[in-house]
Amino acid sequence: MNLINLDHISAAPLLPEVKAIMIDAINSDLHNPSSQHQAGEAAAERIDAARESVRRLVGAADAKEIVFTSGGTESVNHAIKGAAMANRSKGNHIITTNIEHNAVIRSLKRLSGEGFKVTSLPVDETGRVDPDDVAKAVTDKTILISVMHSNNETGTIQPIKEIGAIAREKKVLFHSDAVDSVGVVPVDVDELNVDLLSFGSNRFYGPHGIGGLYIRKGTRIFPLLEGGVQEHNKRGGTENVIGIIGMGKAAEIAIKNMDARGEHLLRLKKYVLEHFPEYLDEYLINTNLSYSLPDILNISLKYIEGESVMLMLDGDGVAVSTKSACATGSLRASHVLMSLGLSHADAQGTIVISWGIDNTREDMDRFFASIQESVKTLRDMSPLYKNHSNNS
Amino acid sequence: MNLINLDHISAAPLLPEVKAIMIDAINSDLHNPSSQHQAGEAAAERIDAARESVRRLVGAADAKEIVFTSGGTESVNHAIKGAAMANRSKGNHIITTNIEHNAVIRSLKRLSGEGFKVTSLPVDETGRVDPDDVAKAVTDKTILISVMHSNNETGTIQPIKEIGAIAREKKVLFHSDAVDSVGVVPVDVDELNVDLLSFGSNRFYGPHGIGGLYIRKGTRIFPLLEGGVQEHNKRGGTENVIGIIGMGKAAEIAIKNMDARGEHLLRLKKYVLEHFPEYLDEYLINTNLSYSLPDILNISLKYIEGESVMLMLDGDGVAVSTKSACATGSLRASHVLMSLGLSHADAQGTIVISWGIDNTREDMDRFFASIQESVKTLRDMSPLYKNHSNNS
Repeated sequence: MNLINLDHISAAPLLPEVKAIMIDAINSDLHNPSSQHQAGEAAAERIDAARESVRRLVGAADAKEIVFTSGGTESVNHAIKGAAMANRSKGNHIITTNIEHNAVIRSLKRLSGEGFKVTSLPVDETGRVDPDDVAKAVTDKTILISVMHSNNETGTIQPIKEIGAIAREKKVLFHSDAVDSVGVVPVDVDELNVDLLSFGSNRFYGPHGIGGLYIRKGTRIFPLLEGGVQEHNKRGGTENVIGIIGMGKAAEIAIKNMDARGEHLLRLKKYVLEHFPEYLDEYLINTNLSYSLPDILNISLKYIEGESVMLMLDGDGVAVSTKSACATGSLRASHVLMSLGLSHADAQGTIVISWGIDNTREDMDRFFASIQESVKTLRDMSPLYKNHSNNS
Repeated sequence: MNLINLDHISAAPLLPEVKAIMIDAINSDLHNPSSQHQAGEAAAERIDAARESVRRLVGAADAKEIVFTSGGTESVNHAIKGAAMANRSKGNHIITTNIEHNAVIRSLKRLSGEGFKVTSLPVDETGRVDPDDVAKAVTDKTILISVMHSNNETGTIQPIKEIGAIAREKKVLFHSDAVDSVGVVPVDVDELNVDLLSFGSNRFYGPHGIGGLYIRKGTRIFPLLEGGVQEHNKRGGTENVIGIIGMGKAAEIAIKNMDARGEHLLRLKKYVLEHFPEYLDEYLINTNLSYSLPDILNISLKYIEGESVMLMLDGDGVAVSTKSACATGSLRASHVLMSLGLSHADAQGTIVISWGIDNTREDMDRFFASIQESVKTLRDMSPLYKNHSNNS
């Protein structure tokens, strides 16, 4: 029985074209792109081509504004810590939201220990931050605003363009963690008015462990990884050449196929929303359906544990997640769902399904059958459910 | 005409076995190793196997002491900045040497801006630091000593074991940048008494953009990349799974073949030292021949520019370097060579040759012929050389 991957947010498969170009890179014995001899130049040219594709993907004016990193987490740490430390003489206040990824939360926590003050804004029950709240939070000490483009657990998209306009008007640097959006939905750094944008490669079917940071020309920021003069002096260290080449190819194809992919993904989303009620009752959809990614839904199943559902689905060959893969092992309820106002029990009853261009309606049908059976089994064992049934 | 790579220090070719396992990893559609379903577990198992090989390579007691990074530069930044910031309550003094890689120099420069005081020790004319100088430099504020294992431009090996014993006795954390040593010569973290050890994968024929940091159990250190709970909570970010698998295989083979490789590399070193004088005169060997790596020589050719020699050799299909690839584009003379007491002119006349298990005596013969011709051409055009010849 083939495995059905409804956990694309954790890992999307490599495109055949990405596999092919990475295998070619492995077999090409590329040299160090910083070396000045012929062998080095061949590697440098391939990195330049990848950088140009990534530039186009996010709408940057200049390829030099793209820094290749080891992934979204490095990009976020670089953006937040680097911008904060480089602008400390101007102020020590940073604005963010309550639903950011741990990379943002932990970077800001580290800065709090260095004398920075962080204002973390709430989201409404639909999971969105109010741009007016951002405007009101800005003080003359504010040097950075960091708001994620879309949430990695719910897929809800934030009003980044509106917040960007506020940041621009108030002359405050604006970073957006767009790791879960770039390559899935159109993201344009100029339209959004962002100065810093973090993204990864795997969301658009490139390899893990490689990502990018857009740094608008003129932005004051320190490097996070200091050493050599690579990446236009913004990130030291010999490049992950094979990964960068893979990411470049994935970006090139994402640009070309974004519309068609979006339609396919959205059709599957509508299919799930339409048919899920035929299989299950008593659940909450935690994704804001007016503003969200086309490829992810966050669902709380009442009276049971999401983790138990995940494990039973796994037994049936269907991979889903319960929260961010980065938070695996933590027993705490999702801070994202608690911020939406969910009860602890509902937050613990959550599964996240995220699909890709490789999924079909038949996959969803298998998921429906499996989750119907799993939830029935778990609810039959659930004292919470028994109490509820007896009382209703 | 095939290219002869005498610039292994910048880039070593991937082993056939490393290529094969990376290609297999690419074709295996591995999932996110942090995901708890079956697909994630398969990826996690492959990372565990790689970590075990790397643990053995550096002699760590526990595989959890190995953190996979995006390469030597990240490892060094993590070790130095992370240890300094985490131990700031104990003191603000750090000891290093004048010949470190830019990753160390720039990390320490950043810390200087944060209130840390750095003592940078000189080396003698053979390129080695005196352990007694380290002992004398330790104060009650000293929290970290960072000394490279071998130098990336000369290959000269430092008395790390002796310095490690001093650090242990004085209860100061000891980091060694062993990027150019690990996988080439035996390195054992217990024998050396290091608490932190940085290394990369390409020096032992693994991919670029992946490396490791050994963190001795109990060492107080902050993460550099913060976010998820990956790498036993020491480095957030989804892993570069393909790179880690490649590095693990390269480590496994390096352990098995280290002695045989060392003999081959040393034979080539002796061959160069024996025959170089037949082709050229008026040069300096800047590598300490009593304490050095078996695969690199640093040679200053009098009266000419190393960069011109490099470019002429490149025209003949022989790749060499003039200094660290990480410093490409900088016009300044090597700080390493200036620290050895070389004149500016001699430092600028330097080439670095570094060979590998794929090189032969015939490669060296072609190098000899090419450099003899190149140096003759360049000296014939050199006013310095003409003055010298007229005066002698």
